[in-house]
Order: sequence, then C-alpha cells, then structure tokens
Amino acid sequence: MGFPMAGHLAGRFETRVWNRTASVSAAHARRYGSRACADLLEAAQAEVIVTCLPTSQEVAEVLGMMEGRLSAGQLVIDCTSGDPQRSQEIASGLAERGVGFVDAPVSGGTAGASSGRLSVMAGGSPEDFGRAVQVLESFAAKIVHVGPVGAGHAVKAVNNMLLAVALWSAGEGLSALAAAGVDLGRALEVINASSGRSNATENLVGQRVLSREFPLTFKLGLLSKDAGIALDLARRQGLASPLFAAADAMLRVAKQQLGPDVDHSAALQVLESWSGITLR
Amino acid sequence: MGFPMAGHLAGRFETRVWNRTASVSAAHARRYGSRACADLLEAAQAEVIVTCLPTSQEVAEVLGMMEGRLSAGQLVIDCTSGDPQRSQEIASGLAERGVGFVDAPVSGGTAGASSGRLSVMAGGSPEDFGRAVQVLESFAAKIVHVGPVGAGHAVKAVNNMLLAVALWSAGEGLSALAAAGVDLGRALEVINASSGRSNATENLVGQRVLSREFPLTFKLGLLSKDAGIALDLARRQGLASPLFAAADAMLRVAKQQLGPDVDHSAALQVLESWSGITLR
Amino acid sequence: MGFPMAGHLAGRFETRVWNRTASVSAAHARRYGSRACADLLEAAQAEVIVTCLPTSQEVAEVLGMMEGRLSAGQLVIDCTSGDPQRSQEIASGLAERGVGFVDAPVSGGTAGASSGRLSVMAGGSPEDFGRAVQVLESFAAKIVHVGPVGAGHAVKAVNNMLLAVALWSAGEGLSALAAAGVDLGRALEVINASSGRSNATENLVGQRVLSREFPLTFKLGLLSKDAGIALDLARRQGLASPLFAAADAMLRVAKQQLGPDVDHSAALQVLESWSGITLR
Amino acid sequence: MGFPMAGHLAGRFETRVWNRTASVSAAHARRYGSRACADLLEAAQAEVIVTCLPTSQEVAEVLGMMEGRLSAGQLVIDCTSGDPQRSQEIASGLAERGVGFVDAPVSGGTAGASSGRLSVMAGGSPEDFGRAVQVLESFAAKIVHVGPVGAGHAVKAVNNMLLAVALWSAGEGLSALAAAGVDLGRALEVINASSGRSNATENLVGQRVLSREFPLTFKLGLLSKDAGIALDLARRQGLASPLFAAADAMLRVAKQQLGPDVDHSAALQVLESWSGITLR
Repeated sequence: MGFPMAGHLAGRFETRVWNRTASVSAAHARRYGSRACADLLEAAQAEVIVTCLPTSQEVAEVLGMMEGRLSAGQLVIDCTSGDPQRSQEIASGLAERGVGFVDAPVSGGTAGASSGRLSVMAGGSPEDFGRAVQVLESFAAKIVHVGPVGAGHAVKAVNNMLLAVALWSAGEGLSALAAAGVDLGRALEVINASSGRSNATENLVGQRVLSREFPLTFKLGLLSKDAGIALDLARRQGLASPLFAAADAMLRVAKQQLGPDVDHSAALQVLESWSGITLR
Repeated sequence: MGFPMAGHLAGRFETRVWNRTASVSAAHARRYGSRACADLLEAAQAEVIVTCLPTSQEVAEVLGMMEGRLSAGQLVIDCTSGDPQRSQEIASGLAERGVGFVDAPVSGGTAGASSGRLSVMAGGSPEDFGRAVQVLESFAAKIVHVGPVGAGHAVKAVNNMLLAVALWSAGEGLSALAAAGVDLGRALEVINASSGRSNATENLVGQRVLSREFPLTFKLGLLSKDAGIALDLARRQGLASPLFAAADAMLRVAKQQLGPDVDHSAALQVLESWSGITLR
Repeated sequence: MGFPMAGHLAGRFETRVWNRTASVSAAHARRYGSRACADLLEAAQAEVIVTCLPTSQEVAEVLGMMEGRLSAGQLVIDCTSGDPQRSQEIASGLAERGVGFVDAPVSGGTAGASSGRLSVMAGGSPEDFGRAVQVLESFAAKIVHVGPVGAGHAVKAVNNMLLAVALWSAGEGLSALAAAGVDLGRALEVINASSGRSNATENLVGQRVLSREFPLTFKLGLLSKDAGIALDLARRQGLASPLFAAADAMLRVAKQQLGPDVDHSAALQVLESWSGITLR
Repeated sequence: MGFPMAGHLAGRFETRVWNRTASVSAAHARRYGSRACADLLEAAQAEVIVTCLPTSQEVAEVLGMMEGRLSAGQLVIDCTSGDPQRSQEIASGLAERGVGFVDAPVSGGTAGASSGRLSVMAGGSPEDFGRAVQVLESFAAKIVHVGPVGAGHAVKAVNNMLLAVALWSAGEGLSALAAAGVDLGRALEVINASSGRSNATENLVGQRVLSREFPLTFKLGLLSKDAGIALDLARRQGLASPLFAAADAMLRVAKQQLGPDVDHSAALQVLESWSGITLR
C-alpha cells in the first residue's frame, strides 16, 4: 500500500522514502523521483513524516528509532491500521517533544492506493488535522476527521470488522444455499440487487471466492488483527458485542488453519473445509 | 407491500384482489381499477394467483381455503418471504391438481414496491418460471431464477439474514465508537466510502437510527422470522453457522424486548439499552 | 446401552428382545435368559414395550412396523434420547389405539447401564408413569417424573447440551492454560476442587482427553443431535439462547471434521487442530 | 473473603491487618486477636504480606504505596482473583527489590473462607511457593502449584469462566424447559444425577435462582471481570474461543443491565427479562 501512496506524495511534495529493505526505497526513488533515505535518522528530518506499517507495534519501534531527531513543529501522520490505545500512547510521547500526531488509516485497497482515490478516516487535534489534510489529499478522494487521536484507528478497526462480519456471514449463507441446490452466481446476483448486499458481496465474494482466485491484496492476518482491535475497543469500554466476538473467534480459526499470509477472502475456505462444499 | 404490487399488476392485467379486510380490497379497486373479490373462492378463479402474506403459514391457510376451486393449468406465485420447506410441501399439494407454483419473494421495501422496481428471487420449474416472469415484470426491475421450488425463499431468507447481521454489527461498531468519543455521522460517512459498507450502513443506520426516526416499513418480527429460516436452512443440512446462530439469537432478544411490530432498525435499541449510549 | 438395560429387565420380568441384528438378540438370550424375537411382530405382543434407539426417527419406524399388532392397554417406554415434538406425535398416534407412551431417556453411560444405576427423566401421564416406574426400576437408581409426554426428552436434550457446553468450554480453557505454560493435570485437579467443576471436568476431560484415550462410549454424532434438539426446543418457543447456539455450531464443526462415530470427548481435537496445542 | 481468611492466619501466626476502612481492621483485631495497622507502611513490615483485593489494579496501588518499605526476603502472596499479565509486571517490580511473589487466588466462597477449607491455585517459583504453602495452609484444604507467576491467576480466571458458562447455559436450558411446561425443580434434580451436572447446577441454580434468593456472596461485576481475564488470556495467545467469547458478552450484558453489585447468580434475571419466564 505504502509504495504507490508515497508515489502520489512525491508528485506534490519533496519526498524522502525509507523502507526496511533498501532496494525498495531505491526502486521508489527511480520510479517516482523521491529521495531514498540511507537510514531512519535521515527520514526523521522531514517536516511531515508519514508511516504506513503492519501494526502500531512497528510504528512505535520506527518512531522510537527516530526519536532523538524529532523536534517541535514536526507532524507524524500514521496511515497504519493501528490500535487506538497504542496511538494515544505514541501521540503523548510525541507531544512531549512538540511533535503532532494524526492517525489516518486508509481504505480502498491496492486499487485505491494506485489511483490515489483512497478514503481516509483521521483522528487528531483540529490543527494537526488541518495540516495533515494537505498531505493526505495527494492520495485520497475522501478525508473525514472523525475525532481526537485514536478515533481514526477506531473507525478503521470497526470498518474492517464490519467487512469481516459481512464476508464470513456471506460464506455461511452461500454454503447453506449451495447445500440446498441453489446456483451461487445467481443467488449472489440477486442479493447484490437486494437489501442484504454489502461491499463484501458486491466486490469480494464473486471476484475472489466463487472465481476460486483469492488474489492476495489484503492479508488474513491483518484483517484478523483489525477485527481484534475493534473487539478490544468495545470490550475496553465495558460493552457487550456478541457478533464482533463471534466474528473475531472465526477469524482466529481461519488464521490458525490457513496462516496469516493468505488473502482475507480465503477465510471462507474454513467453512468449505467444514462442510465439504466448494463455493463456486 | 402487496397493495402497490397489486396496483402495478392492475396496470397490465385484469386483476382481482382479495384482502382479509374487505375495505382494503375496495380501496384498491377504487385506486387502481382492480376488481375487489367478495371471497377467496372468487379470487381462486384467476389464471395466475399471486400471494403476498406474512409467513408461509398464512399462504398454506389461504391456498387451503381456495383448494376446492383450483384446477389444472393455474399458477400460484408466492411473493411471501416464506419457508423453503413449507413451500415445497405446498407446491407438492398443488402439483397433484396440476397447479404450478413459483416462490418469488421480493426485495426493495415499500419504496421498491411503489416504484415497481423490486428485485425478485424466484424458485420453480423452468416452465412455471417462464410464465411467472411476465407477471413479475409488472413490479420488478430484476428477476432472477435461482433454482427449483423453495430456492427463492432460501435466497430471500439468506439475504435478510445478511441484512440482519450487517445491521446489528453496525450497531455494535457504532456503540463502541460513540463510547470512544467518535462522531457517528462522520464515522458512518467514511465507512460508507470504505470496505465495511453495506446496504444497512448506506440506507438504514443513518436514515433510521441516527435520525431517531425508526419509520415502520419492515417489522422486526418478520426480519427475525426470515433470519430464523436462514439458520434453519443451514442447520437442516448439518452445517455449522456460528454468525447466523449469534445473529438469530440477538434478533430474538430484540423481538422479545421490543415486540415484533416495531421497524427492524429499532433492534439497535437493544444495544442502546445495554450500553446506555444513544446512537445519534 | 440397550443390551445391559434389557439384561436387568430380564432379571425381573419375562423379557422378549429384538435387535436389527438377530445375532445380538440371540446373544442376549444366551446371556440373560431373555427370549429372542424372530421379528418385531413377536416383540409387539409384550405388555410393555421398551425402545432404546439412536433417534426418534428409528422409534417411529419401529413402532410403525409394530402398529398393526398394538392394542389397548399396552405401554411403550421410549429410552431413546429423542425429540420432544416427535415423541408427542408418536404418543398421539399410539393413544388412538389406547396404547400409553412414556419418554424415559437415561443418563449414566455404559457404566450406569451395566450396574443398573442409571438416572431416568420421564415424561407422560401420571398413570403411564406409574406403570413405567416398576419397569424402569430394573435398571435405574433415580427416576424422576418431569412432566407430560416429551418432557423427559426435553430434559435429556438440555442435560446433554449442558454436558456439551461444559466439555467444549473446558477445552477452550485448558487450551489457553496450556499456551500459557500451565500444567493441565494440576489445573484440572484444582478446578475440580473449585467452583468451575462439572461432570465434564471431573469425569471426562482427564480420563478421556488428557489421557489421549478418547474411549468410544457415546458418539459425537449423538451428542450433536441431542444438543441440536435442545436448541430447537428453545428456538421453537421463541427464546434467545446464545450459548446453546454457539455450542450447537461448534458440535456441528466437530461432527463435520471428525465424523459422527468418534467418542464425544474427541470434539476437543477440533480445538487442538486450530491451536496446534495437544491437551495432555 | 479476606476477613475470615485473615482470621485463620491470626490463629497460627502473628498477624497484622490493614483495610481501607479502619473500623474493619479494628473489628478484626477484637475478634481474632490480630493487630490492626494504622497505615500500609506498618503492614509493609511483615515477613509475608497477603493481599486479597477486588482486582490487580488495587493490588498494584497498595503495593505501590508500600514500596519504599519493602526489602529483600519478604514475600507477597496475592489471593486476589487477578490478571496474570498484571501479576507478572508486579512480580518483576518486586523482584528488583528481592521480594518474592506468589499469586494464590482461592475458590470456595465465603463458606470456604469461614471454614478455612478453600482451594488455592498458586503461581510462582518453587521456592516462593514452598514458603507460601505454610501460610496458605491456614485457610486452605487444597493447595496446588500450577506453574510460574501468573499461572494461579490464569487458572482462577478459567475456573470462573467455566462457572459463568455453566451458570448461564443452565439458565438457557431451564428457560426452555419452563416454556415447555417442565417442572424446574424436578428437572434440576435429575440433571444433578446426570451427565450435565456442574457446580452451578448443584450449588447455585436451585439454592439461589429457583429459590428467588440471589444472596450476595460473589458480585456479578467480579465474575464478569474474571471471565474477561480468561478471554483475554486466550486471545492474547492467538486462540479462538467462541464459547468464552459468547459468555463474556452475555456477562457484560448482565453487568450493564443489573449493575456490578448484585450476586452473580442474578445474571439469569437477564434471560428472564428477555423471555418473560421466571425461573422458579
């Protein structure tokens, strides 16, 4: 995701890039005219630092390594699908140095990242958000300020849990229909013209599952992580969330059975392994 | 639903109407130029009989009362959101008299019924479906033949279960976000531009729940009935459906707490009563 | 189960035995001095007919084959773990011929059957129950009249669902403890001296799971069937039963993954296949 | 719980007591001959310090206030039903001062505390456990060393989750039986002689729920907290625990609806409020 996003940035701003694998930064520099940094300390000198990493754990590590160089007036924009609580801790640490923080996770997948038409749900102070917008506009078609620091990550986690719930429940439904002798392609067609439709039924189940392609664009392990954050968010506030809890458990089963590195749509293969029915 | 649907029928075909409340038939006749039947026996003489009732139980009762008058060559089109197994039993009984049967439940709500742009998921033999299409085109924009008798009801039940799952899980998510201080209108706006969107988030949660209007267009009791049929469908075939099972339980809680006659979107008031958080 | 139960009967009463496999009846006659019947019609002449079959489906079939010979004054005692609704239908049919019916499922396993110390939960009219008690005392240490026809099967289904819930949840708990480095034998020892203990933790998990023996005394498929009856019982009455629903789904997963013929305690192997942790 | 436990201690050892409410310490001193401490610093001078508090949060606070006075060679025994992770953090802090730590939660309720016949599940090093045993024997009939620091709290959390699962599922079962016209007292009697029995069915449901007494001996809020710790334990290790997840959600519903301060058995009043059926 980060590669094309940083490409759009380089089209508007003087952009330094850093990646754990130096050849990736070099390739980015060649392709988009960005400047590949030798190390994080070089990257740390940018006015605005944009992070896009697997989890908040890596964000904390990377910012920890930069820490000595960060100074008042800089802004960190974290596009990771992170953990609201961790982000609040990170933001507190940065605030002590006068560094701003906006959590700005994105939705739209690799397609949206390439076309520069992602959706962004942002959390932070109005001032920090105001500065971040100009940067985010490089790669986003929709940018919504949803609340204080952590709010962006919270909304992203809930969004991805809703995706997970819709995907898995579509799998349960199609399994039952297949067992009853219903044509799944036609069932999906009419569901997509009806009240049960969702992004999962419209853009995932047919294209990835019924097609048997399961193209890897968003890893199951990451969806499971995000869904877990959504359940944590609810439980930490004392709420009862029985559907979130059931979906979180099912994604854990899928991750345990299939490993974290398959496409998230492959989760439905767990239902197939239970029922012996192939969804096609 | 049936009133405007039969109105569209009357625009294309000579149409007889019957309702348990005679004044309703009379009003229909005045408004659409249909012919109000004095009793079911009069209605039973139609070439094609279209039923649209709360459950398959009422369909069985109404057809039972017509039974003596039905004869070979007639066709019953059942637009009820019915039970696949009951429909197969009803169709078997009709077949003994040479009467065809197509289960043809609709989606699109009262708005779709008024505009004549419903979606229909139909089950039946190819011949019966072929005859039914001409009738269904009066009020439907999309008509899909999904399989043999019962398949239409099966797909409708699954569709409505997916709606229920999406609605309830959206409620869980918005409750967690509200408790975390996130603006729900903005969260919903960005979810609707992201991968977690569904018909429930796009067309129900904002318009009916956050607005606090809960307009009655589709009863909670009927959604709970449909969701139950979807779970029955899966369980009867030996399948494990943990999310369907959890959602079925939650709809039963809602129906027990709120009664069956509120709008289905009011189910989220159960989550509100638990958390003390109003979704607005 | 039925073999030793009928053995105890033969110790007190003149007893005819029938089994789908004739050699089983012959072996019973040799061992216990019962009379092996050549066919069901011969068995049908007994004053009291005791059935003990896998499901109510087989009970209906066997009684259907006997039907022509049954006459007023006879009593059927059904020790099957059956379905309350089917039993009420069966009892209605028998009542038309003046034949009584008591559902009298048993608990205590093969050990209780051998020792003649089973527990019986009986449903039926007070008169029929009164007659049945004398027969049931042959093999039962505890006989409780829980209500009208079907009540015995309802209580048995709930009992077995509670067993299933306790077994599966013990598996979830021990998996978590094993992953945390806790000694499972010691954990089980202290749980069995604490408030979380159950028949499952006291008599199944250590002896069958931690021992890795999984001796076949009660089939997973039958436990899943009983749990399903308990959930049906609750749902048919409109109740919300989220834990029953979740446990029913998990037993279906286990039955799908392991087949119906393993011991019910093997269900925990599903949790092991998910986590990669062996419970020992 | 702590009051009679410290009473047993005072029967064997020179015992100092401290409570947030000074009159409680004074009453203890009068009744058992212990020495009431004016403040925590006085208590901090004991060779062995025994804590029994609502959650690990209070343990961390109390030990934090004592910290300046603690020195090498002392031992902390924490009888709180705590959080394994927090306990490991607390133990690490104490280890830096040479102070040992054993988590030693108890089961047996107020009755077991009074009679000095509690069960203890202990976590800690073999040396620390060895010292702790002599103290724990004052009030415990069974003491099991289940693993390193945190293991005791982990086993206790799982034990209490199993209690919660058994209690709630018994409520679901009895609701279904009551709706079906079964006598609940008799149903419970025979379940308690059958394979579905548990400590909850044997010692809670009849005595507290069917009796309508709900005597306050263990607060719902604390059971919900413990069940949450058990689910956290499983989830932190990546495990899927669908029944734990469903039970955790239901306890949260109960705590939200009834408040944290009622007896844990009152959780079944939630099922009653849904169904309209009183369990008696």
